[in-house]
Amino acid sequence: MSQMVRIALDAMGGDHGPAVVVAGAELALARHPESEFLFFGNAAVVGPILARHPALKSASRLVHAEVAVRMEDKPSQALRRGRRKSSMWLAIEAVKKKEADIVVSAGNTGALMAMSKFELKTLAGIERPAIAALWPTLRGESIVLDVGASIGADAEHLVDLAVMGAATARILFGVDCPTVGLLNIGVEEVKGLEPVREAGRILRERQPSGLEYLGFVEGDDIGMGKVDVVVTEGFAGNIALKTAEGTARQLAEYLRSAMSRSLGARIGYLFARSAFREVRERMDPRRVNGGVFLGLNGIVIKSHGGTDAEGFAAAIELGYGVVRDELLARITAALGRPGKEPQAALRGAAS
Amino acid sequence: MSQMVRIALDAMGGDHGPAVVVAGAELALARHPESEFLFFGNAAVVGPILARHPALKSASRLVHAEVAVRMEDKPSQALRRGRRKSSMWLAIEAVKKKEADIVVSAGNTGALMAMSKFELKTLAGIERPAIAALWPTLRGESIVLDVGASIGADAEHLVDLAVMGAATARILFGVDCPTVGLLNIGVEEVKGLEPVREAGRILRERQPSGLEYLGFVEGDDIGMGKVDVVVTEGFAGNIALKTAEGTARQLAEYLRSAMSRSLGARIGYLFARSAFREVRERMDPRRVNGGVFLGLNGIVIKSHGGTDAEGFAAAIELGYGVVRDELLARITAALGRPGKEPQAALRGAAS
Repeated sequence: MSQMVRIALDAMGGDHGPAVVVAGAELALARHPESEFLFFGNAAVVGPILARHPALKSASRLVHAEVAVRMEDKPSQALRRGRRKSSMWLAIEAVKKKEADIVVSAGNTGALMAMSKFELKTLAGIERPAIAALWPTLRGESIVLDVGASIGADAEHLVDLAVMGAATARILFGVDCPTVGLLNIGVEEVKGLEPVREAGRILRERQPSGLEYLGFVEGDDIGMGKVDVVVTEGFAGNIALKTAEGTARQLAEYLRSAMSRSLGARIGYLFARSAFREVRERMDPRRVNGGVFLGLNGIVIKSHGGTDAEGFAAAIELGYGVVRDELLARITAALGRPGKEPQAALRGAAS
Repeated sequence: MSQMVRIALDAMGGDHGPAVVVAGAELALARHPESEFLFFGNAAVVGPILARHPALKSASRLVHAEVAVRMEDKPSQALRRGRRKSSMWLAIEAVKKKEADIVVSAGNTGALMAMSKFELKTLAGIERPAIAALWPTLRGESIVLDVGASIGADAEHLVDLAVMGAATARILFGVDCPTVGLLNIGVEEVKGLEPVREAGRILRERQPSGLEYLGFVEGDDIGMGKVDVVVTEGFAGNIALKTAEGTARQLAEYLRSAMSRSLGARIGYLFARSAFREVRERMDPRRVNGGVFLGLNGIVIKSHGGTDAEGFAAAIELGYGVVRDELLARITAALGRPGKEPQAALRGAAS
């Protein structure tokens, strides 16, 4: 039997709360019987929902939390109201106490990041964690980071993102030496933000092991799958991610309306409906739901707040590979700067 | 008969040079007989091509330019090599000398911006011109600016972009009071870059006439057409634009490959082919080719370098409305700050 994966769930997070979290966990359990769930939430609300899913219930434990972080709370508010007693806090704490391998929440992103930093602390040498997103491309999938954890980045932070992103790509995509590009507004060396140009120079000189730096990439290179890992600071990364999602929705809407306008189109749709289903599935943002917080002493997965059970299950499933292949240990090792012995880096991270 | 529009063309610009520029001008002339063209380029190359289009030739004048700015030239190189003698420089100069109403180039963007600033100068109070792009949306079209003229922006620059973008939207979309949003990574007041938040406060307080400020928008709001004008600094704007283009290409490729995979899909495609054509046209980046440089004493239109004749014609056609409705005069008037009398602002701009 495979290794058990223990998953802490913030049952109160997201626009739909426990209904989606419980249903999503049930889907994940059906696909991965080697799962144990720790639900954190209001027992009076979550208990009855869980009771309707007996198979899931027998693989789960429910821990009462009296506070639920609200989607509109500022991070500081969430910390004030929810520290030590919110479902989000307690779920993260389960990872800290090694009672769970990962935590998944569809709750307030800012609060989740603030609480994760507070409880888990960042890895040695990492000041600011990042959110890494999986991005469907013409070649398969790429990792794009940071998609919104922090705004602005100096060159060294971008280099750290490259190293952490490559470690994640090695695990999730099973490639030995993932290709890495820096997101910029031109591929020429003279273009773009100074920290991006400087990060390019550093990556070229240091040649960190375990990644192949290919230079600058532009926005339209992401979807083409030009590199396995696209590195950017969080403001531009978030705008790129949301713009791509919006464009996919817009084109799906064009297609839907064109296919219902004439009799010919409607007949054509009937013949080609399996092809349409395939395109719809490839464009479905639920398929790749889940951002991984990188740079913390623990793995935190953020699901879209508005997702449904299928999407929440996808966010949970992202965790299995990450846990089995020990993403955290690999990132810690990879962050050892050339010139230092790797042991030193590991000691630093463990302190 | 409508007012004549005099168009200066950098015949050597773009990946395909005069072949595309001449063929694009011919398409534009067929649709707008009230056009006069001034071609600038190597007479030995452009002359014979023009000679093959007699109708166009009779509406055109060809001016020899001994230098062509290269696509890979840095702006400083282009200025050094091409000042006073390149096709790009001379085409811009035609606008400065009032021999042309607009200039259109598919050449090197950085060089075009540098030469335009050098020759035309910026409007009073504007330090950095912007590139405004037309963006197809579910509601029609929006203007997004800046999509790459400059990197980084303080709050006042973002406010100027809002005012210039709104003046352009009034003309191109024929609306009295266009809606404006600031691109950010969340819609809450506490989120995002400080200059963006500050610009939001200024727009709320000053309430510039001729636009309705609706607050922050996110990347996925652009394609939905949530506002008429999306304001952002050039780095994020360029990445948003290119990411949307890449996503559209990616989805078109999914669709193409799905529709050829099974017999049913191929039959369906035949029935629905007019619907597919419609979707393809709506997704066609050529349809909205052309960025307008705003903030200069003259109108410069930049076409995609890799476009074909149809796309270059679209860039030229963008110019007609801009010229007829006197975009430049409107922007100059709109930039008058509240509190100043408009005359003062106009005097300032004319100095």
